[in-house]
Amino acid sequence: MGDLVLTTFDWVPEAPRGLVRDLRVRWALEEAGLPYRVASVPFKERGGEHFAHQPFGQVPWLTDGDISIFESGAILLHLGERSTKLMPADLQGRSDTKEWLFAALNSVEAASMPWVMFNFFGFTDSPERKWLDDFLTLRLKHMEAVLAKREWLAGPFSVADIMMADVLRPIDRFDGLANSPACRDYLARATARPAFGKAHADQMAHFAAAD
Amino acid sequence: MGDLVLTTFDWVPEAPRGLVRDLRVRWALEEAGLPYRVASVPFKERGGEHFAHQPFGQVPWLTDGDISIFESGAILLHLGERSTKLMPADLQGRSDTKEWLFAALNSVEAASMPWVMFNFFGFTDSPERKWLDDFLTLRLKHMEAVLAKREWLAGPFSVADIMMADVLRPIDRFDGLANSPACRDYLARATARPAFGKAHADQMAHFAAAD
Repeated sequence: MGDLVLTTFDWVPEAPRGLVRDLRVRWALEEAGLPYRVASVPFKERGGEHFAHQPFGQVPWLTDGDISIFESGAILLHLGERSTKLMPADLQGRSDTKEWLFAALNSVEAASMPWVMFNFFGFTDSPERKWLDDFLTLRLKHMEAVLAKREWLAGPFSVADIMMADVLRPIDRFDGLANSPACRDYLARATARPAFGKAHADQMAHFAAAD
Repeated sequence: MGDLVLTTFDWVPEAPRGLVRDLRVRWALEEAGLPYRVASVPFKERGGEHFAHQPFGQVPWLTDGDISIFESGAILLHLGERSTKLMPADLQGRSDTKEWLFAALNSVEAASMPWVMFNFFGFTDSPERKWLDDFLTLRLKHMEAVLAKREWLAGPFSVADIMMADVLRPIDRFDGLANSPACRDYLARATARPAFGKAHADQMAHFAAAD
């Protein structure tokens, strides 16, 4: 356990501000009350040092003393293991948190990420778009059934909720939750948390400071 | 720690045989030498019991005594915590295994899964397909740089390699690794392991038995 340093870009264009994935990590750190500092790497020129920490040239990564971790899922899991505010202590609760953390990334975001990008690029009318719409709709239908019956995914609020809410946010931005009221309510509950507000404001301020 | 039961479909059509995600779990169980049995649920009619274990109506899930886990990533992580043949014991090795497990699912499969489906449905020529081709190509370019320099992702062979190799397999089936020789070599190394061969043969036999 060492000092926690979260690295993100020094600047990004307007469109992704508020959605850059360092937000997930900031949110978890704020929920846990863990002290951390934020470091920056250039958005425009990504060098060898960047790829040494994040082999896909993306952000964020987290260093915890000597350990450097990329992938927002792996970082949230690591922080969950540092704080019971982020992952319950009991075996069942820990297992549920982990499976929903993966589900957010692989069962929901695998459908929503290309869907969000298709919206962003204006790919609105094609067999490809139709397939992706149907794929996302089906996954959200199943999420709707789950979220209609529970406040948070794994019992108490956990990193699974941070991840799932942050995956739902860009879907909602393109009005993709119109027929998913339980998902919308869940997202509203999650983003009403003070730690989310702090994380979001900090990310916006970070990028604004570089303009 | 209890008896391990892996649940998959009773039957699937020809096309996905050999690619159903229970293979990842079978492979890990075979590598670790952990005893397990395989149970089936209907492919054609998915009931409440199925959704209670797997809220998206997919397979696989694993029960370990009283704990039931869905999401192949969460299952491999759970098994990694049961066997040092699947995840190294040291802190750095464990951290690396986890980040690459997430990377396989979220940095590579998030691009490859829709790409594979587009191939399957014959979506071969459109701006949507071009975007997806470029997205996957970029991710593979970064994987190529990583795999050119190492035998396995996290030092010794681990669940991260099982996941990454199994994510690369359907890409390779549609010739998507043509310009990625290090990825192809890595995939060949991984699938040459006896545990993969056993897992693959067992999955094929399982579905063939239901015809």
